[in-house]
Amino acid sequence: MTPAAIPTIGVFDSGFGGLTVLRALIERMPQARFAFLGDTARLPYGSKSRRTIARYAVQSAQFLVEQQRAEFLVIACNTASALALDAIQQAVPVPVLGVIEPGAQAARAASHSGDVLVIATDATVQSHAYTAACRAQSLRALEKACPLLVPLVEEGWTSHPVTEQVVRIYLDELSTEAASQSLHPDALVLGCTHYPLLRPLIERVAPAGITVIDSAESTADAAVRLFNGRAAAAAVDNSPGAPTPETEIHCFATDSVEKFERLGSRFLGRPVGPVELIDLGG
Amino acid sequence: MTPAAIPTIGVFDSGFGGLTVLRALIERMPQARFAFLGDTARLPYGSKSRRTIARYAVQSAQFLVEQQRAEFLVIACNTASALALDAIQQAVPVPVLGVIEPGAQAARAASHSGDVLVIATDATVQSHAYTAACRAQSLRALEKACPLLVPLVEEGWTSHPVTEQVVRIYLDELSTEAASQSLHPDALVLGCTHYPLLRPLIERVAPAGITVIDSAESTADAAVRLFNGRAAAAAVDNSPGAPTPETEIHCFATDSVEKFERLGSRFLGRPVGPVELIDLGG
Repeated sequence: MTPAAIPTIGVFDSGFGGLTVLRALIERMPQARFAFLGDTARLPYGSKSRRTIARYAVQSAQFLVEQQRAEFLVIACNTASALALDAIQQAVPVPVLGVIEPGAQAARAASHSGDVLVIATDATVQSHAYTAACRAQSLRALEKACPLLVPLVEEGWTSHPVTEQVVRIYLDELSTEAASQSLHPDALVLGCTHYPLLRPLIERVAPAGITVIDSAESTADAAVRLFNGRAAAAAVDNSPGAPTPETEIHCFATDSVEKFERLGSRFLGRPVGPVELIDLGG
Repeated sequence: MTPAAIPTIGVFDSGFGGLTVLRALIERMPQARFAFLGDTARLPYGSKSRRTIARYAVQSAQFLVEQQRAEFLVIACNTASALALDAIQQAVPVPVLGVIEPGAQAARAASHSGDVLVIATDATVQSHAYTAACRAQSLRALEKACPLLVPLVEEGWTSHPVTEQVVRIYLDELSTEAASQSLHPDALVLGCTHYPLLRPLIERVAPAGITVIDSAESTADAAVRLFNGRAAAAAVDNSPGAPTPETEIHCFATDSVEKFERLGSRFLGRPVGPVELIDLGG
């Protein structure tokens, strides 16, 4: 493969949780070049208005397309996918994929009852983006904000008894709510890019008969489908296996890179390497 | 008292945790006018660089002094106090008080051994501002970041068994570390404006013989000392008791005010009233 044939895939998050999506992308497209931007100066997007989030997300997308020459964009951030996907698609001349729709599609494939549960951050739940995306798949979704899970993951307590207790409390509340609405959920969507690190714990705690949907995995699968037949097809490795060492990854952040470098490897499953500080203004 | 004699005290935080400081100020100066600004569009400051924090904090301080005519400023934010107090003092022509030094002074008054513990957010601990302020009081300080406590408070779990467990874990780790350094701490500084809501729980869980220092209370005491003899003296009510209903409070935020309005009353101990959205740019 000549260097010219190597596509650049831009991956964007408000922080570094989206590295779980990058990890899943690398596993499927080990020969692509990846540029990952964490807009850490302005995180969390979750507490901000739609207008502000769209402005930040568009600036980030433009950096990846214009400065890093990304030919495809993956919005590895639930809040930005929920509130700014349209704005980004209008602002850049490349295909853009969010995380919400792939999660809903994977839930559709997994669910027999048509009822699914979604756990996410407060901002994502308040946007009701998963409810809308699930409805488009003829699914009924019940969403719950789980604001303690991101800090528990960032504390590194991914298999800690406290985290198990918190997950049990959240899932119990969700089950009670589902029962009160006469829902019979058989799928649980992890609607936050931090949650894949809790997947083993959540699968252990979740009620029997519930399939856990990792939207990082679903998004990476959707990316492969979207990119297949395009330039990026050259980068798709159809053989299973670990990421090849030659995958080229460049990470950028808009503010202090220390936490990104320190915690990022947990999310990426390998060292993130040096993170370059950039200025998007504002 | 004529309206002209009523001083305006500006209180600033990156979010709404600083409302615990405002609450303590109101108790002591019920007849002052208060303007509280939460820079919610750009929180949390903790993950940002000193340069960025100083820029944001100076803009916020200038809003309170120039637009709201504050004659005194209280920086009710540990991160901004730790990293931007000098920059704010240089930028505005009014007295400015942070939360760190009053906390250290209160610890000095409470401690006999000269060894104190400080719990705070990651950013505050990394700044070592409490260690420096304690050293200036001839105290040895041992600091610990407790990143789960803010989200637990914001979840409303201020007396929840999970929170008690988390506090026990943090304090046990801190005690072990203190013992390994041959320290004999007898005071524990709550170095985050969210933590006063956990004070009853922390006092129950803390080892015997430890005095818990609430830096919101200490800061309000210091504000009274600073403002006494100045214009604000008229506002100081030396009689103890609940805040009088006439206290004038105006709250401002730089982005979505919903969470501020919803959670703010827990911190302020009364309804925050309508929160006005303002734009500081950037």
